[in-house]
Amino acid sequence: MTNSFIPPVRTLMGPGPSDVSPRVLEALSRPTIGHLDPAFVGMMDEVKSLLQYAFQTKNELTIPVSAPGSAGMECCFVNLVEPGDTVIVCQNGVFGGRMKENVERIGGKAVMIQDDWGKPVDPQKVEEALKQHPEAKILAFVHAETSTGVQSDAETLCRMAREHDCLTLVDAVTSLGGTPLKVDEWGIDAIYSGTQKCLSCVPGLSPVSFSARAIEKIKARKTPVQSWFLDLNLVMGYWGGESKRAYHHTAPVNALYGLHESLLILEEEGLEQAWSRHQRNHAALKAGLERLGIDFLVDPEARLPQLNAVNIPQGVDDAKIRTRLLDEYNLEIGAGLGALAGKVWRIGLMGHASNMKNVMFCLAALADCLS
Amino acid sequence: MTNSFIPPVRTLMGPGPSDVSPRVLEALSRPTIGHLDPAFVGMMDEVKSLLQYAFQTKNELTIPVSAPGSAGMECCFVNLVEPGDTVIVCQNGVFGGRMKENVERIGGKAVMIQDDWGKPVDPQKVEEALKQHPEAKILAFVHAETSTGVQSDAETLCRMAREHDCLTLVDAVTSLGGTPLKVDEWGIDAIYSGTQKCLSCVPGLSPVSFSARAIEKIKARKTPVQSWFLDLNLVMGYWGGESKRAYHHTAPVNALYGLHESLLILEEEGLEQAWSRHQRNHAALKAGLERLGIDFLVDPEARLPQLNAVNIPQGVDDAKIRTRLLDEYNLEIGAGLGALAGKVWRIGLMGHASNMKNVMFCLAALADCLS
Repeated sequence: MTNSFIPPVRTLMGPGPSDVSPRVLEALSRPTIGHLDPAFVGMMDEVKSLLQYAFQTKNELTIPVSAPGSAGMECCFVNLVEPGDTVIVCQNGVFGGRMKENVERIGGKAVMIQDDWGKPVDPQKVEEALKQHPEAKILAFVHAETSTGVQSDAETLCRMAREHDCLTLVDAVTSLGGTPLKVDEWGIDAIYSGTQKCLSCVPGLSPVSFSARAIEKIKARKTPVQSWFLDLNLVMGYWGGESKRAYHHTAPVNALYGLHESLLILEEEGLEQAWSRHQRNHAALKAGLERLGIDFLVDPEARLPQLNAVNIPQGVDDAKIRTRLLDEYNLEIGAGLGALAGKVWRIGLMGHASNMKNVMFCLAALADCLS
Repeated sequence: MTNSFIPPVRTLMGPGPSDVSPRVLEALSRPTIGHLDPAFVGMMDEVKSLLQYAFQTKNELTIPVSAPGSAGMECCFVNLVEPGDTVIVCQNGVFGGRMKENVERIGGKAVMIQDDWGKPVDPQKVEEALKQHPEAKILAFVHAETSTGVQSDAETLCRMAREHDCLTLVDAVTSLGGTPLKVDEWGIDAIYSGTQKCLSCVPGLSPVSFSARAIEKIKARKTPVQSWFLDLNLVMGYWGGESKRAYHHTAPVNALYGLHESLLILEEEGLEQAWSRHQRNHAALKAGLERLGIDFLVDPEARLPQLNAVNIPQGVDDAKIRTRLLDEYNLEIGAGLGALAGKVWRIGLMGHASNMKNVMFCLAALADCLS
């Protein structure tokens, strides 16, 4: 016979999931109700408004996809890209590569712009690509690269795309709630995020938002969306503002209780306050790491406060230190991903986990393990 | 400012979600850990074994897809069907139609076998279709039609398919845990289910299982799987038995705690005992409904004990009664779906909700509302 799974109590300072607030954990355990229950439908409307606030958008089509961030990414691509479409994809880490995969599996053509891992997307290269590819319909890039801890200048990239009549498709998995992100002001057309990073909800949902221009492109499609589950024409019927909601799929009811509560916490604190808290704790962590002789992968101006990619000091055994942190301190920090495996650690200070206690704890534990 | 969402406490006797055990709700609220944490990986292995028990299979590839049942359906189709493939699809309710959608969005050809809603799939029609379409590679059907409360003879259908060298793709969303289902004995090649029906976990995950023959077909594909998120070649690297797990997507950690606990409850009770409990409570409900003059849509031999589709008595206002049940009794029963809207109610006795107290309560509340 198997036993109930009682997880260890960790401090989650990796690239996500991050520490989840006890308020959110409690919300998850509230009694399940039907996904067509009027009470549930009312809560869904609140989730939509709270997400609009988090994304800083008035987009009507702002909803949580009922699956993790990678499904949110796929939702954006399969709805906006048709076979034969050219998409300019910026890659400066793991997730730009995943965007390419998405474009190609739809039968689209991905024009790749490569930047070094740890560097932001270079706007000049983007400008050139936009000029060279007037047939391109979409510019896709990652706002906050979870694999490298770098943030790119989304505002500038979106302005350029608009000037070339391109839609923008933006990965905000790690930025939402942690660092300034202004969907309407910057003119982002399609955006996806995750719940397990700076929103400090559990993993499993992917907030997305689409501009009127994006919806226009979706409605003008000549081919059906290749995914039934992610087809926004159907999803809209379920999440739309209509009085009668069409059944599409069974919503993950309790996960949405958790998201509702986490977005409420964000609203209570205020977005600007959350952004400055992330910045403040990043500064404290940075000061402490420098005292330990640990430096950053990313140049100061492009660093994400919520995800600190630092170079593993020479001669230090990556896996051994992370195992000690986990076993002796119940502290999780992230390993490097892809090309950066073994070279960097990724120390997250995301959402609920971005607090002074975690900063001090992590520094002390690291100092102990490295001494 | 928005307030925390405190859901009403309902009794869920619709087509799902069904009542969730307090043990499962508590499990959801346990502290989140990382999706690559060794403790989590150990729990994943247990979830796999527990699912193998529930499905009665030794299939190595038996995992929960990180999204609801409709994504589980899509996972089976996008991996097994390639553009140009012929798939024989049996439709006797809403979900056979959704299977057709899936086949066509992949570029496959769906040969439809139609049976009346409320009737099981007719094996003779299937035999004829298999003979007429020797090019067919897959036979797809719904074991337990959630829209009509009917079960089809999966064992016979699978035997026929095998004789014609066809793989079988089976919807077991409503059957798993509630009514006999034997993946290996019956020779099912690909199967998907949901967590919110007879497993009495929350909605949001879709258990799937694939036979060696199915995996062979997936590995022999000439085209890439059109979905990155659902590509089993990638998912296997994450859930596979290897010591080093490749990062694919962030697993819905807390939802998996819930699934683990719900599968544990099933193991403790025993599958056969769970099946007879569903049968026993169905018999009690049936006796009571007959006393109220309410009869069943489905013939006795094809009725699902866990989902009772009954004809709405003449002159009775469908919506009014369901609203009264919800408002006055906090009791949810299901409306008809598609062609059966307004004609039937669907009364679920699924998983944790299949108990004598619910039977008596539902009968008393219905009697009151109909008097």
